[in-house]
Amino acid sequence: MEHTLTRRELARLITRIENGERGAQDALNALYPRAGNARIVGVTGAPGSGKSTLVAEMARALRGQADPPRVAIVAVDPSSPFSGGAILGDRIRMRDLHGDAGVFIRSMASRGALGGIAAATADVVTVLDASGYQMILIETVGAGQLEVDVARIAQSVIVVEAPGAGDEIQAVKAGILEIADIVVVNKADREGAAQTVSALKSALELAPVGAGHHGAHAGPAAPAGHPSYQWQTPIVKVSALNREGIAELLDALRRHAEALAAGGEGERRRRRQIEADIQARLREMLLQRALHAVARADYQQVLADAGRRALHPAEAARRLLETLQP
Amino acid sequence: MEHTLTRRELARLITRIENGERGAQDALNALYPRAGNARIVGVTGAPGSGKSTLVAEMARALRGQADPPRVAIVAVDPSSPFSGGAILGDRIRMRDLHGDAGVFIRSMASRGALGGIAAATADVVTVLDASGYQMILIETVGAGQLEVDVARIAQSVIVVEAPGAGDEIQAVKAGILEIADIVVVNKADREGAAQTVSALKSALELAPVGAGHHGAHAGPAAPAGHPSYQWQTPIVKVSALNREGIAELLDALRRHAEALAAGGEGERRRRRQIEADIQARLREMLLQRALHAVARADYQQVLADAGRRALHPAEAARRLLETLQP
Repeated sequence: MEHTLTRRELARLITRIENGERGAQDALNALYPRAGNARIVGVTGAPGSGKSTLVAEMARALRGQADPPRVAIVAVDPSSPFSGGAILGDRIRMRDLHGDAGVFIRSMASRGALGGIAAATADVVTVLDASGYQMILIETVGAGQLEVDVARIAQSVIVVEAPGAGDEIQAVKAGILEIADIVVVNKADREGAAQTVSALKSALELAPVGAGHHGAHAGPAAPAGHPSYQWQTPIVKVSALNREGIAELLDALRRHAEALAAGGEGERRRRRQIEADIQARLREMLLQRALHAVARADYQQVLADAGRRALHPAEAARRLLETLQP
Repeated sequence: MEHTLTRRELARLITRIENGERGAQDALNALYPRAGNARIVGVTGAPGSGKSTLVAEMARALRGQADPPRVAIVAVDPSSPFSGGAILGDRIRMRDLHGDAGVFIRSMASRGALGGIAAATADVVTVLDASGYQMILIETVGAGQLEVDVARIAQSVIVVEAPGAGDEIQAVKAGILEIADIVVVNKADREGAAQTVSALKSALELAPVGAGHHGAHAGPAAPAGHPSYQWQTPIVKVSALNREGIAELLDALRRHAEALAAGGEGERRRRRQIEADIQARLREMLLQRALHAVARADYQQVLADAGRRALHPAEAARRLLETLQP
């Protein structure tokens, strides 16, 4: 690696990416070929599942290893103490990570990045990857398509669940269990943890084979002579606050990396992710170009017609499309 | 209204909208001019805030009024008992609503609708509106941009909060308080409700004026002679399960409708929503047309280059864009 960015340069470049500044693309173009070495892990779960503490403890454990990897934390979750909408207690708990020069922490905001926060997050991960961060943890709140999109930047997705009141399983309720490669039951020292584990077990068994982004246990047949992707989503009990179960979780992550590599699934995922990324960016570029190219009078006419309910929004869009040459 | 759809026709049309079937657009075009009479209310909050029960009790209370409105419930929230990822107990609780011919309940799925679930939800609301449903309640899980988009189909947005452990306020954590027109503290009979109310009060006072989709208390200056939009987001204590506070909530909704009408804000919101809707659909149409128009060889080349990290995804998209005439 010829030139590594300083932390300050890194922080500035990320801000430029978030702001959708034109110049940032040149830097991204230069950095993109140098990325591709990092282990990228998504961590998602409902607010209150303790995923920020989990991420912090994962980072701490990784940094405590012999020959520790450089670790980056990217918080896309507005409920994360790493990001904007913080709660003081959480933030204090994370503070000592900030003193470690081998840890880079960044929260994401989307202030006009083309393609929105998912594309901006992908770019930030590229920059961190190219800058030599070997483990990148992306924290997102677990609900909604956007969070799923962001989680899909990752090679492995951890869905975090906390023991709830009664039999409520947030991950099932929010429909995000199907994107899990690893399920963590955090706060496993709390009452109800065993029920949560067994409810999650049932839910995972009931999950349709082939559902989710990883093609589950089946997926398209592997080429002859190649083993297919074999992975049984494990449930790992953790108490992040008490620093229990973190080693087991890191071990599950290692095993998942091996399974991805052995079955060629890692490469298949990467190709799918790149295609989706290109399409998302193209979609936004096309809109910007179209809004620029369309005659102001046509645009205002269509808005007015839709406004008085003479024209359905889809027809309005189609009419604008027709004024633009393909 | 010439021809009103039967429940069965309604359900079928909605399925065709979800599936993105071409023929559905003709029906939508015919129905669009007939819509515009319904009161459209978004209800959002974290899983576990009890918003489904709240929505059910709102529907029940509305139907119990003299000259009751026809009520439709649209569940976009995967954690809703009205929708897919249900929990049996919740579902049973809702059952008696199903017996009322003046109530229509529908959960949304996005199976290829152009423009995604937000556009599909807008279309379903149009269909229900044109079919004579006077009150349409849209339930979404409160987190992520998509949910915000869906909530923005509404004229009024209710953010639901439940008393939490300690001082955790999910709406603040998830950053959705700024889209609230009305805040409900549900499960107000539970311990900690008073603290939650006062924490929400502080959060609302701290919220930047002009933030959120409603331009808050300020907003652009109203034309001379017109009163400006005046609205102070109220906090309403409710216990949906005990059917307490529902009347107060419906009253707050009525007052909000008056405030929207008095300040012209309702019409401004509607115009903004239509423009955003048109742009979202145009974006998707442009992508589909582009993917169709682009040469297969160019597309594969760009994918391959990005795959071996010789080309950043944004550059890949730009290259595809350049092969297409504007």
